[in-house]
This record gives sequence, structure tokens and C-alpha cells, in this order.
Amino acid sequence: MNFINEDIITAIATPPGNSALAIIRISGKNCIEIADKIFIGKKPLVESDSHTIHYGKVIDESQTVLDDVLVSIFKAPNSYTGEESVEISHHGNPIISQQIIALLLKHNVRVAEPGEFTKRAFLNGRIDLAQAEAVIDVISSRTISSLKGSRNQLDGILSEYVTTLRDSLVDFSSLLEVELDFAEEDLEFVSRNDLISKLEEIVEGITNLLSTYSFGKVITEGVNVAIVGEPNVGKSSLLNKLLKESRAIVSEIPGTTRDIIHEDIEIDGILFKLFDTAGLRSTSDKIEKEGVTRAIEIIKTADVVLFVSDLENSFPDSIYTQLTENCEIERIIKVLNKIDLVRNSTIFSDIKISCKTGEGIDTLLSLLKKKALHGEIYTEKTAILTNVRHFNALYKAKELLEKAVGSIKQNYSGEFISVDLRSAENQLNEIIGVVTSDDILNNIFSKFCIGK
Amino acid sequence: MNFINEDIITAIATPPGNSALAIIRISGKNCIEIADKIFIGKKPLVESDSHTIHYGKVIDESQTVLDDVLVSIFKAPNSYTGEESVEISHHGNPIISQQIIALLLKHNVRVAEPGEFTKRAFLNGRIDLAQAEAVIDVISSRTISSLKGSRNQLDGILSEYVTTLRDSLVDFSSLLEVELDFAEEDLEFVSRNDLISKLEEIVEGITNLLSTYSFGKVITEGVNVAIVGEPNVGKSSLLNKLLKESRAIVSEIPGTTRDIIHEDIEIDGILFKLFDTAGLRSTSDKIEKEGVTRAIEIIKTADVVLFVSDLENSFPDSIYTQLTENCEIERIIKVLNKIDLVRNSTIFSDIKISCKTGEGIDTLLSLLKKKALHGEIYTEKTAILTNVRHFNALYKAKELLEKAVGSIKQNYSGEFISVDLRSAENQLNEIIGVVTSDDILNNIFSKFCIGK
Repeated sequence: MNFINEDIITAIATPPGNSALAIIRISGKNCIEIADKIFIGKKPLVESDSHTIHYGKVIDESQTVLDDVLVSIFKAPNSYTGEESVEISHHGNPIISQQIIALLLKHNVRVAEPGEFTKRAFLNGRIDLAQAEAVIDVISSRTISSLKGSRNQLDGILSEYVTTLRDSLVDFSSLLEVELDFAEEDLEFVSRNDLISKLEEIVEGITNLLSTYSFGKVITEGVNVAIVGEPNVGKSSLLNKLLKESRAIVSEIPGTTRDIIHEDIEIDGILFKLFDTAGLRSTSDKIEKEGVTRAIEIIKTADVVLFVSDLENSFPDSIYTQLTENCEIERIIKVLNKIDLVRNSTIFSDIKISCKTGEGIDTLLSLLKKKALHGEIYTEKTAILTNVRHFNALYKAKELLEKAVGSIKQNYSGEFISVDLRSAENQLNEIIGVVTSDDILNNIFSKFCIGK
Repeated sequence: MNFINEDIITAIATPPGNSALAIIRISGKNCIEIADKIFIGKKPLVESDSHTIHYGKVIDESQTVLDDVLVSIFKAPNSYTGEESVEISHHGNPIISQQIIALLLKHNVRVAEPGEFTKRAFLNGRIDLAQAEAVIDVISSRTISSLKGSRNQLDGILSEYVTTLRDSLVDFSSLLEVELDFAEEDLEFVSRNDLISKLEEIVEGITNLLSTYSFGKVITEGVNVAIVGEPNVGKSSLLNKLLKESRAIVSEIPGTTRDIIHEDIEIDGILFKLFDTAGLRSTSDKIEKEGVTRAIEIIKTADVVLFVSDLENSFPDSIYTQLTENCEIERIIKVLNKIDLVRNSTIFSDIKISCKTGEGIDTLLSLLKKKALHGEIYTEKTAILTNVRHFNALYKAKELLEKAVGSIKQNYSGEFISVDLRSAENQLNEIIGVVTSDDILNNIFSKFCIGK
């Protein structure tokens, strides 16, 4: 794939704020020459080797020093984008960054679109599309396990798995197509039984990958936990206890749409989003209708529901009915609180705890983790599906292959089979970006931050 | 000055947040060797030249890849600190930064104190103390003129000016001291008249520099503007109008202590902090006492007071008295608003405006700037005093020199004069850091951000 883009792009690559350092990135053909126009160092940058660093000053048209800087130069194709690139490390003040960017804009450089550096890296063949998508996941991961998942994808483990599936599919489709070319001679280049068993093997590979998605979703998006129960059974105490016993995560993600207050914690690297649903009660109070509606919404999207009760209020049926109407039973954990008060309670529950003494909290944390992961654990070298776009493509590929297997069994003409196999191949190719429409690309890279 | 510190220090040098890039700095003897322990690239970093960049992966003890990075290496003394240094450019995710820092800490590296990199640059003689202090000002400047002032100081213009004064002082003190050594022989190495005229020249130089301080303070700290007046005369309209007609600055400085809401604007590169004091009224309402106390506090620290009135309420005496009791008359600007209603008002005011039509607002902006700068303008090559520590040192030096001149005129013994001259010299040396106590150093660098 050859991609020629004459534009030179620039952006600030570090977060806004006052700090020791900030970095401005520039990428595009001859951008080192442009950098020389605003930089005075020991010698011109164009005369320097790739991967070298140069101390000097950025000066504007009136020879005023804007900052002393370190300029790093990268010659094509050995840069992140695969193009000639420059990085300007300057004092971390947004005013200085803006001044330098403004100066560059006067020299035919334009501000990069979100993700445009990574898009160029992809278009120049430095990384494939699944890897490019992993870049933004690596940056925005909020927990260690989420980071590991994206890291895994950036390292190309998913791409490799998908490529292997795609390649064996291509081998068989090609044989089938040669056969079609010689249709008049009625030759069978590949036995129908072999074809079926090979396709079923590929379907199995896809199915295995698809099955990692629930785990992948857990590690990237976290686990929604609803805490429900009557007033005064200790829901807030439980929330506070969980926050204290785990690593509480300060939520600073802009644009959180859900206006219900929730707390994020991390248990063994997995993000748990705890929602305290005060709304759900056994008595139906008209005024609280809004609260109930919200609580039910939370329960519907919850991966785990902690149904809390104490010894006096033993898991009221009216609440339990509402829960089972809105979520699967296996997602509900009955938590009996206040066991410090009565040790030998006969009330049935999944787990007994005391927020006061801390008894049972560790067990609850393990149980939460177990429920979230459905007992699944993948090693770092396993391909894991975390992206809904990839899930959909694989799902479609699987359907197409199953259809093809059906067609073969019914002795349909080779053309039919071939079309489905090629479509399945395209679905797999879309994941790694061998064939990808501009719409998909724009959609992927618009989610990036500026400067990446 | 030789400074030996065996510690290897590290810190994140970019602001917290999710971004394209983040930088970790490492500095100290043999730190490249340490970097090699957590990095896998094409070849060991220790075998590479200074000022080169290396692509590779940071791996932990269990060979897990934490991130792919670009490592820049700097060999002593050609680095910011003057020591062997390393910069690790990685994906901008605070979790990754923390993981890499945690890994470094396992290899006898410690987290840097605030400003420790710059402190080392100073202690290793890379920059003088006034320049080191300018670094933090360059980073935290919020307007272009403030940035220019700090830039000026970082470029060493202040240091040069002070050094010149100090050097001529040293010349004369030395002559005087030689004279003292030969006291028995009653020789006069330097004529008393020459000494007086030379010292007066130095005093003049110091006085000139001291006089730049009010300007320096304006450009670094900005100008406090209080808006006072009766209710409904248009104080809020004026505030909004000023915000619209100038560049409003989003205030994101943490730890703003003053809990009164204020708005920051920039007029021709100068920061104006506008305080709307609703509290000050002609009728004295007991309930509003707290508001009045706050308003007076603002007026006391205001550089400019905009006393707003309209045609109905013509600058009530009761408010004017409160103003003059708490600030100098020349700081007050009487602003007559709503002149769109009555064109030929006979009420006396310094300026007539209409927030509705915008008439007079430009003139008001110029007047604000003129009042703030006291008509003073300095070029970029003039030494400007912006730091209270420098002001105090110069002020003391001036006092000591004036005392010395007095002593000479009264024919006091050479010893007296010499002591004062040496003390004055020390004051000047403290600015550039030739002799500086640990306390002063700690005080200066503790104000820095981590990583600088």
C-alpha cells in the first residue's frame, strides 16, 4: 500500500497544562526543512542524521526567541508515521506550544486531525488497522488489565490470529476458483469433504475468538455492579467498604453521559463501576417513581447485582421479583450484611458479610471478580477480542462460512460457495485493514486524541 | 562549583492525562546503564552516542512488555542537568508512566523532588540561580508579556546586569582591602572621591533596576482590578463587556486561595484580574457586613479600582469615602455608564461608557493598560525585575552602598566601609546564586513542579 500525502501536519502531543516538558510533533515530506526555518542550532537540521537530538532556539520572524528546545529528527521511513518527522520538546507552557504551532502554520504546515499521525502510520503500512485501533486503547486504558488487553492487540497478537484464519481461507477459495475456471472440464481440485472440514476448522477458530469477547469487554470497559436493597440495610456502608478495600479510581473521563453518581474501583486490575441504586424499595411510593425507573435501568445494564439485606429485612420478594424481571438470576448475588449482630442466621444468602467488622468483604471481592470473568482467564499471548467492530466482522464471517458449509453439503454450485467465502475473507480483512472504506477509517481515527 | 550527587532521580515531565506522548526523565551518573536494564532495543544504550534516539520496548522483570518507547540519551555534561540523562517517550497513559517509574525505582532510582532537575542544572553550573528561577516562571506564565519577562530572565539578561554591577563593586572593594592591608603605611590606593562617584554609579544602576519592579510585577502577576458601585449601575454588564472585548483567560491554576469569583482577561499581553465587588453600597445593611469586609479587602489589594456609576446614581460620597480610605486616589477610575441614555451628562467622571452600545470600552481598555503600566514600557533586551527575592536583595544592597557612601563622606575607617561593600556584594551574589544558603535554594526549588 502506497500512500502519498503532501501535507505536513503538526499537533501538541502532550496533555495541556503547565509542566517540565511539552512535545510538538510534525510529520510529512520535507518537514525537517520547515523545522530549520524556525530553529537555530549548531548546524542545520537537514544536515543531521536520523534519530538525533539537537539543542537550540525556536525564533519567530522578528528573531525573537520563543523558547529553547530540543529537536528530534526522524527520517523516512524510520518514524512513527513512516514519514519524515520532527519532535520539538519545549518548556511545558500552553502559550509557548501555541506560539510554536502558530509559527509552523505560517510555513505551510497544517494542524493534524485527531489520530492523523496513527492514520498515516497505518496508511504507510507501519501498523495494521487492528494495531492502530489498539493505540487509542493503550492511551485510554484505565486499568492494568485493560492496558494488557490493548497492549496484546498492539503487539499484533489479534492481527496474527485473524491473518492465519484469513490465509487458510484464501488458500481454499483460490483452489475453488481455479476449479470454477475449469468448470467445463468437471475437475475437482479440492475434495468437498476436505473443504467442509477445513471450513469447519476455520469456523471453530472464529468461534473461539468470539468467545473471548465477553472477557475482552470486561477488561476494556469494566464491570457494572448495581447495589440494591431496602433502606438502612447498609448499601452505602458496603459501597464505602469496597472503596476502602480496593484501589478507588478517580474518575476524570470527560463526557461521562450517565448522570447517576457512581464510584469506580479496581480489583486485581479489573475496573468495577459501582452504582448505588437507592430507588428500589419494597413499598411503592409514587413520588419515587423516577428513582425506581432509574434503578431498573441500572439493573438492566448491570453485569452483577449485589442484592443487600440485613437480618431484619430478609431479601423482600417484591424487590427480588423486580430484579428477576430485569436481569438474569445468575447475575444476582444475595449479600447478607450485619452478621456481626447475629452470627447464626438461617436466612439464605450467597455470601454473609459485616461492613462494620469487614468480615466477608475479601470473599465478596473474589466473588465479584469470579462473576465478572465467568471463570475465564486468558494468558497474555492469547488473542483477545475487545472491539465491537472486530466482533461484528468476525460474527459476519462466521455466518458466511456456515452458510458456505451448508451450500457445499447441499451440493450447490461452486459460484455460490465462492461468493460467500470471498465475503467472509473481506470481513476478516476489514479487521486488519487490508480493504477498508474511508468511512470506517474516518470513524476509527476520529475517536483519537489530537497529536496521536 | 562542583556538585556530586550519586542519586539517580526520575520523574514524569509531562502533565498528567491521556495523550499521544508522555515523557519520563532520568538523571544521574550511570543512569544510561540503569535504562538498559528495563529496555530492549537494537543495541545497548550504553554503546550509543549522546543525543541519539532509540526505538525499543520497556520490559519488566517477567519480560512483559510495558510499552514501546523512544529513549533519548544524553551524556554528561551535555544535558539539561549537566549529568548523564535519559528521556523515555511513551504512550500518554498515566498507568504506563507509573509502571515505568515503579520499575525504575526497583533499580536504585528515586523519585525526584520538585525542581530537582533544575536544581542540579544550577548546582552543576549549567545556569545561574536567577536563570533557574526563570525556568519556573517560563512554565507558569499565563500571558505573553509575562512569558517575555521570564524568557528575558532565562536568557540571562538580568544576571548579566547584576553581574556587571557586582564586578565593578568587587574591583573597588578589592582596592580598598589592599589599602587596609597596607594601613600602617597610610597609602590611599583609590581616591575617596573616585570611590564615592563609582559607588553612586552602582547605586544608580541598582535604582534603575529596582524601578522596573512595578512593571515586572504587572507582567508576571497581572493587575488586580476591583469593580465597585451601587447595585444596577451596570457592574456585571461592564464585567461581561470587558470579557467579550478582550481575550478571556480560562483559569485552571490549582490552589487559587481567594474564594471570591473573578474573571481573568488579557489586554495586549497583560493579565487583568477583574473582581466584581457586589458588597460595597451606600446604605449600610447589617446583613451585608461580610460582603463589605470582603469588598474592602479587594479594594486594598487592587491596582486599579473601577468606580462605576450611572446617571441616576452619581458616584455616592459614602462609597467614595470608603474607597479613598482603603486605596490611593490615583488608583481610582470613575466610570460613568449608560451614556447612551443621556448624551450630555454634566456629572464629573474620568471616562464615559455605554455597556449597551460598547461606546468608550476601547478607551477604557487603553486607560486600564496605561494605569497598570504607569506609562512604562521596556524593550525585550532590558533587564526587568520580576522576583520579590531579587527585589529584596537589590534593595538591601542599595541601602548598604548608601551607608558606605555616607561613611566615606564622614571619613570613617576603611574597615567599616569594606564590611558594607562586602555585604552589598553578597546581596548581589545571592541573586545569581554565587553564594546561597540551602534554605534559600530549598525555598526556591520547592515551588517547582515535579519533573523540572
